[in-house]
Amino acid sequence: MVGQSGGPTAVINASVAGVVSEALNHGCVEEIYGTLNGVLGILQEDLIDLAAESQQTIRGLKHTPGAALGTCRYKLKKQQDFDRVLEVFKAHNIRYFFYAGGNDSQDTADKISKLAQQQGYDLRVIGIPKTIDNDLPVTDHCPGYGSVIKFVSTTVRELACDNEAMGQGDLVSIVEVMGRNAGWIAAGAALAKRRDHPHDPPHLIYLPEIAFSTEKFVADVQRVLKREKYCLIVAGEGLVDADGNYVAAEEKTDAFGHAQLGGAGDYLKGLVEQNLPGVKARLAKFGITQRAAAHAGSKTDAEEAYLAGQAAVKAAILEAETDKMVTLIRGNGDHYTCETGLAPLSDIANGVKKLPREWINEDGVSMNHQFVRYAQALIQGETPVPYENGLPAFAKLEKNSVETILPASEL
Amino acid sequence: MVGQSGGPTAVINASVAGVVSEALNHGCVEEIYGTLNGVLGILQEDLIDLAAESQQTIRGLKHTPGAALGTCRYKLKKQQDFDRVLEVFKAHNIRYFFYAGGNDSQDTADKISKLAQQQGYDLRVIGIPKTIDNDLPVTDHCPGYGSVIKFVSTTVRELACDNEAMGQGDLVSIVEVMGRNAGWIAAGAALAKRRDHPHDPPHLIYLPEIAFSTEKFVADVQRVLKREKYCLIVAGEGLVDADGNYVAAEEKTDAFGHAQLGGAGDYLKGLVEQNLPGVKARLAKFGITQRAAAHAGSKTDAEEAYLAGQAAVKAAILEAETDKMVTLIRGNGDHYTCETGLAPLSDIANGVKKLPREWINEDGVSMNHQFVRYAQALIQGETPVPYENGLPAFAKLEKNSVETILPASEL
Repeated sequence: MVGQSGGPTAVINASVAGVVSEALNHGCVEEIYGTLNGVLGILQEDLIDLAAESQQTIRGLKHTPGAALGTCRYKLKKQQDFDRVLEVFKAHNIRYFFYAGGNDSQDTADKISKLAQQQGYDLRVIGIPKTIDNDLPVTDHCPGYGSVIKFVSTTVRELACDNEAMGQGDLVSIVEVMGRNAGWIAAGAALAKRRDHPHDPPHLIYLPEIAFSTEKFVADVQRVLKREKYCLIVAGEGLVDADGNYVAAEEKTDAFGHAQLGGAGDYLKGLVEQNLPGVKARLAKFGITQRAAAHAGSKTDAEEAYLAGQAAVKAAILEAETDKMVTLIRGNGDHYTCETGLAPLSDIANGVKKLPREWINEDGVSMNHQFVRYAQALIQGETPVPYENGLPAFAKLEKNSVETILPASEL
Repeated sequence: MVGQSGGPTAVINASVAGVVSEALNHGCVEEIYGTLNGVLGILQEDLIDLAAESQQTIRGLKHTPGAALGTCRYKLKKQQDFDRVLEVFKAHNIRYFFYAGGNDSQDTADKISKLAQQQGYDLRVIGIPKTIDNDLPVTDHCPGYGSVIKFVSTTVRELACDNEAMGQGDLVSIVEVMGRNAGWIAAGAALAKRRDHPHDPPHLIYLPEIAFSTEKFVADVQRVLKREKYCLIVAGEGLVDADGNYVAAEEKTDAFGHAQLGGAGDYLKGLVEQNLPGVKARLAKFGITQRAAAHAGSKTDAEEAYLAGQAAVKAAILEAETDKMVTLIRGNGDHYTCETGLAPLSDIANGVKKLPREWINEDGVSMNHQFVRYAQALIQGETPVPYENGLPAFAKLEKNSVETILPASEL
């Protein structure tokens, strides 16, 4: 069984395609099921037959954004929930479980795996890394990250062409990008700069890693406006002040207790308008579109996501591994190479990898060559999205239901 | 001389490339100058030598967004300004003037042309249509429009994949797009629907052409949430209520007296949160990035923009035309064809072409097949943007200054 969890990405479906195509290679695999909406589908015995999908559809998943199986942010808490998961697994004789997701999802996978071990039910659980936030520990990087920063840096480069044409020393352009706890995505915008052109846009990058100061912000913007004709800013949504408080927090929290952010861009726009009379501030806020932008996706990223799915199946079946997550390991050579490894789920679950402080320049608003070297490899190549009638053609699963065996259960 | 004016697009540089490459075909053309920042560059005698640019650069303009010559929103008002324009033209023996822009720019071109005629100065002035708003009269459509709706409908299709995976009957996703006076861009999002799938996203399109009603909006959203698992909305920035007032107007106005809009998306987000408890609303606001999205540009659009530039030069030199704008004329056949024509600048200046009411369905929130047929032809083909090191490589003009002849003038 394979499932998807957490926020979708441009390449999480490529991982499912990798799982399905690899699973077909192994005679011991009798059925390939997908759970709809992650663990919710297990609890509700809402499963589909992935082996019944056409080869064309599975191939199409390699470039289809979103999460074709549906996803969830449901957190298994009650013992009753965990028991139900194993009950469903036993009923359908599920012996391999692959879960693509971020840290919360790997935590869930870890708990399911441990419970099966306790109960002596032979189940192999392998996590597949997925997050645009790039904040999972151990793995060099996460599938989903390369595509989102390719889209963001592409767009920043385009926006710069437009802003440069309009700017007369009075234009500030702000791009708000995702990134709840870490500035990985905002940092990725630095790739838009041409080599050896440090003054290229983005002129200023504001990261959650650097305490935000209004005084410094205003001074930064004034300095850039004086030097250039316009100022292009990229800001992560999770900016915090010196006391660690979000500069533009909203009150809401999600099911995991994370603050739901947004508004950092509006906040900076307001600061410009209040502090720099006569200067126009324009805001672009990609919202969810950035993590779904398969049309501007990284081929490297999509291929690694697919590879991670394959590696998960190989590890479980060929190496009898369990309770691990697939990691991506970068080679040491000058030429970028990437292979997969494995790490205990407990090492991943609920961990957060911060952007290294030493990759951020002294000025706090730009990235150094170490970051650029790290990130540039991840955006190489263009995802070969097929076009039909002028628009990307995406795959849609048929979703043939697997017959339920158990009585329905209340969540 | 060629100049660019108003908001940049993904293809206005393609028009300049068309002008330059065509001008080189004509022996009577001794020099090819560009004016920096539209009429401002003429007033300031800030001209560059376009013939000195490399062929590679001019070819690169065909896929480079922004306005490579710089643009402006300066409105010539004083007689002194107009006199200065002619003075500069005379000093440099400018006999052909090509101005790519929207309605205000064509108005400026018209006035310059008329003044030259009055003064007996032999000058041929041809306008080149440019606006993502697609609101110029006479021409079937405007270069810039096809690319922006290709980007918007691509993104809506991707966002839908993501939203569908997340939605549990409680997710409203709002995309705010440009369009000050007309809903052409918001309407273009309808292309994201697959043929014969009227319930495909975007589920609701709000246009400035249809008076906005909060009651209807809430009922629309409730209906969609009941039918689908999520509701994807596209809204033009210029929504107005039954009294013709902007629903989310800001106080500012630009140099032409147009209201500077923004905030329609935030306004709808607020309405959802206030009226539908338990429903999450997410906003994406492309801002300027939508009109610069060359990486998702329409090949048809880029080719027509180039063609319009060439046609302008041919009309002026071969047909001795003046005081006209190039128009795009769609063929009557089943297969889309497009050729250029000419229309008097005075017929274009300050006119606005509204989205035909009969192309909007009775429900006021979706487009019919007549619109789809009109718009679909304009997004065909993908602009062949070259990639370097994972990102689009754009052209940058060398901008070799033309020596000034006149004493500097105060604006």
